[in-house]
Amino acid sequence: MVDILHRIGIKDGTTEATYEAIATRDGVASWWISDTRGDATEGGLLDIGTGMQVKLVELRPHEHVNWEVTRGPEEWLGTHITFDITQDRDYTILLFKHRGWAEPVEFMHHCSTKWAVFLISLKQLLETGTGTPGPHDPHIDNWS
Amino acid sequence: MVDILHRIGIKDGTTEATYEAIATRDGVASWWISDTRGDATEGGLLDIGTGMQVKLVELRPHEHVNWEVTRGPEEWLGTHITFDITQDRDYTILLFKHRGWAEPVEFMHHCSTKWAVFLISLKQLLETGTGTPGPHDPHIDNWS
Repeated sequence: MVDILHRIGIKDGTTEATYEAIATRDGVASWWISDTRGDATEGGLLDIGTGMQVKLVELRPHEHVNWEVTRGPEEWLGTHITFDITQDRDYTILLFKHRGWAEPVEFMHHCSTKWAVFLISLKQLLETGTGTPGPHDPHIDNWS
Repeated sequence: MVDILHRIGIKDGTTEATYEAIATRDGVASWWISDTRGDATEGGLLDIGTGMQVKLVELRPHEHVNWEVTRGPEEWLGTHITFDITQDRDYTILLFKHRGWAEPVEFMHHCSTKWAVFLISLKQLLETGTGTPGPHDPHIDNWS
């Protein structure tokens, strides 16, 4: 079993603002997928675009967020997406993991690159006020 | 053991041009690190920036490249970086793997995001003629 791992740092960021961007509907809509709806409380469900849904399994303010994928691509079902937030002087550090893939299929390679693009969108949102959530995310390949 | 995996697609690309960008000194210098020197033949060594070196273990024209890291960060020593190239209609598809990490340390998270940035630089090089190799690569965190 392999995981998708990423690390970004938000210059002059705060753990509070970074957490808000991951743990609220408006936050997620501003860097991942604009069309995000639902209930962003612990145990709640967020609907992401058409046909994707995550459950907010754990929300530890300003530190940790754990989503479980409850609807989406078959390879994603039951996988967990986690975010760990810490402060290192003037940078807020975000460690990202998408765990629980059964096999390192080609789609996983795609999703790994795609998550990097979305996390850079999150960084830009927090540093400049503007992210590039889908459908305005840059294409990385023929699977978009 | 976990691997770093990525996938990019070059619109209106060719396997020949994509291979050249990975298997030649000028190619690598145009999307990864500008300061690339050495012998880009099978079995040869490429020096990348200050203190990094890869051995071109296998070069299969227009299909596959395998680098072994012979100098660099401790976590990279002995790891393999591979590129598999295929054509899917008007897209050239590049599957990237950085394998052989002993542990999924925080530095690995950083390198995963950083590789995505460099592969997007490679895509831009091939699509527009201009990449953003180091030292002009965008920073993703406090480790640059």
